[in-house]
Amino acid sequence: MKEIQGGITAPKGFLASGIYAGIKRNKKLDLAMIASERDAVAAGLFTVNRVKAAPVILTQRQMKRGNARAIVVNSGNANACTGRQGMIDAKEMVELTASALSIDKKGVCVASTGVIGEPLPMARIRPSIEIGVKGLSAEGGRDAAAAIMTTDTFPKEIAVRGRIGGRMVTVGGIAKGSGMIYPKMATMLAFISSDAAIDRDNLTRMLKKAVDRSFNKITVDGDTSTNDMVLCLANGMAENKSLTGKTLGQFEKMLEHVCAALARMIAKDGEGATKLVEIRVRGAKNVRDAEKVAFAVANSNLVKTALFACDPNWGRLMAAIGYAGAYVREEDISITFDHINLVKNGIGLGKDVEKRVVEVMRNREYAITIDLNAGSAGTNVLTTDLSYDYVKINVAYRS
Amino acid sequence: MKEIQGGITAPKGFLASGIYAGIKRNKKLDLAMIASERDAVAAGLFTVNRVKAAPVILTQRQMKRGNARAIVVNSGNANACTGRQGMIDAKEMVELTASALSIDKKGVCVASTGVIGEPLPMARIRPSIEIGVKGLSAEGGRDAAAAIMTTDTFPKEIAVRGRIGGRMVTVGGIAKGSGMIYPKMATMLAFISSDAAIDRDNLTRMLKKAVDRSFNKITVDGDTSTNDMVLCLANGMAENKSLTGKTLGQFEKMLEHVCAALARMIAKDGEGATKLVEIRVRGAKNVRDAEKVAFAVANSNLVKTALFACDPNWGRLMAAIGYAGAYVREEDISITFDHINLVKNGIGLGKDVEKRVVEVMRNREYAITIDLNAGSAGTNVLTTDLSYDYVKINVAYRS
Repeated sequence: MKEIQGGITAPKGFLASGIYAGIKRNKKLDLAMIASERDAVAAGLFTVNRVKAAPVILTQRQMKRGNARAIVVNSGNANACTGRQGMIDAKEMVELTASALSIDKKGVCVASTGVIGEPLPMARIRPSIEIGVKGLSAEGGRDAAAAIMTTDTFPKEIAVRGRIGGRMVTVGGIAKGSGMIYPKMATMLAFISSDAAIDRDNLTRMLKKAVDRSFNKITVDGDTSTNDMVLCLANGMAENKSLTGKTLGQFEKMLEHVCAALARMIAKDGEGATKLVEIRVRGAKNVRDAEKVAFAVANSNLVKTALFACDPNWGRLMAAIGYAGAYVREEDISITFDHINLVKNGIGLGKDVEKRVVEVMRNREYAITIDLNAGSAGTNVLTTDLSYDYVKINVAYRS
Repeated sequence: MKEIQGGITAPKGFLASGIYAGIKRNKKLDLAMIASERDAVAAGLFTVNRVKAAPVILTQRQMKRGNARAIVVNSGNANACTGRQGMIDAKEMVELTASALSIDKKGVCVASTGVIGEPLPMARIRPSIEIGVKGLSAEGGRDAAAAIMTTDTFPKEIAVRGRIGGRMVTVGGIAKGSGMIYPKMATMLAFISSDAAIDRDNLTRMLKKAVDRSFNKITVDGDTSTNDMVLCLANGMAENKSLTGKTLGQFEKMLEHVCAALARMIAKDGEGATKLVEIRVRGAKNVRDAEKVAFAVANSNLVKTALFACDPNWGRLMAAIGYAGAYVREEDISITFDHINLVKNGIGLGKDVEKRVVEVMRNREYAITIDLNAGSAGTNVLTTDLSYDYVKINVAYRS
């Protein structure tokens, strides 16, 4: 497997486009279209927020069918908390896309991201959909990646190609970042394409596993936005024998690579973030405990401001570990920054060590390993620092 | 019942002092002493963090006895994550205080707040304890309130006096703020004194109720710092008949008033906070659901930055309500700012209403009422906005 260019349009038979439809005030691309030349099997994962945007409800319903040909996505407006009109608008986006593509509307998925609570500017979206469809091309992946951005500072795309059962199989994807990991409710969208031939149950299973190991490690389970959605379409145009057993495992690795790379880009592009820090928990009694500790640390505003300040304030880490609700014994905890051990048996190892840790913390990316010495379970989550710019971006977002 | 001056030294027989012992680098008061002329019944509530500071462990142990004469508190250093030496130091603080007061060490409680993970500067604390004891006076409440501050910007004290069963009974208290409600781990300390005659079981029960309705509504249950502590001493010098039935109810109101006032001051003094906002949840299926929603909203960085910006971004409120994990139906939710209804049946009521809400949001204090229309349970919690200064304060705290 190797990384290649092309993002979501890298796999055979996938076309995409990104245009300006007039939704965003800043005149940036805001309407993305993704289409497969052939009908594809499809799998989706959706927000568990009780307040769901209309496009989420609609696409979730469509996904029960398990097939799709196209995805239409707008940014700049989430079409969430928009009541009955929101559902009418989401349906119209689907119908217009289906009509422009001359396909059945059951094959079209819709997604939205942006401000909550404002009606979609349908007068501007209607004519744009046809333009988006006309613009579809095998080189359109990048524009599509740009057109789904909100506060993201760079488009997120990746593709990998590898030989499976004698055929070249490609997996590509685009994503948009959340506001950040821990504001908990900025939208995360990811769309993944593949030319693999795979049956729908396997695709659903593989996608769930890959998302659990990637996107779910940058967003707390259950604390998702009104609009979060991950869709994966596989159109079979690689003409491989339908994946099973060993070949399914090969595909799984590719899918995981794509999801992990996109998740990492999302974390790295966290609002105002200047650091990307992996929190590795080891020695937990069980995985649930490991996750509690990892998310408590990753989630703490006090820890995150210390990361921003390059301050080896391990007391804040200890306090977060302590309130995580996991089984921990203070005197067993060790904390290591990259390879520098800062806390052993629950106690700091002194000012000289702290100085060396500051050097690690000056890096753009590093890892903090927390060993609870209470068992053998572990997990990794990605977090970022909390900077002045985080506040600035979120103060300015709507006004 | 009326509010009076004097704080923790307002009740009969209570003395206090606050001095500079050399713990804080900024030369502000950092050692507080509180003493009762007579032995007092005592009740305490402590952090549920798994990582507990040495003074918390020690005082929790002493509280099993149910009596106390004095409290010694230092700020500037939390004596947390300090291993065996931390416990030795906490015990020495108790012993030196007992010796200077010529009382049994079993009657002395100890508390600390400040930076975690650094050993107490005992060389400076040792001689200071005697100075603190010598400085004890019935006018020392204010100095004691100042000496327990860390990032607090003003000392927090209150006292109330009322007639119970023919005797004048007084309840006083001091507190120090946490970093804020939601960094989840800055220390909250509160010390309450009374001259009421009350038995220990009743005092414990009343204190627990009062704390649940006040301090626990500004800190998420279970997510407390390594050092949180609320102590209440009642020395009986009002010479009332031991409280029971109706008179106990009168005392309960006084205690609740003191706790609520201190909790409000703590919230108001949240790090960098410019707003104090009460989140009122109504119409929940049950109290647990009401609390989930209230804390999800109060806890959301995106909501908090919108409060700072005076941005009536109700979509962020809706999203937080949705991910709280409570039973909610989007189309039943209404949201009101003071008396202005902004969201009805899950939908925003338009730009004109938003303009009026902006007027409310310009106030220093207001309430947001969220009606879930799903039942009859409710709760109130206090929160603040997230400002640039929050980041600034927490970046600078240790360096």
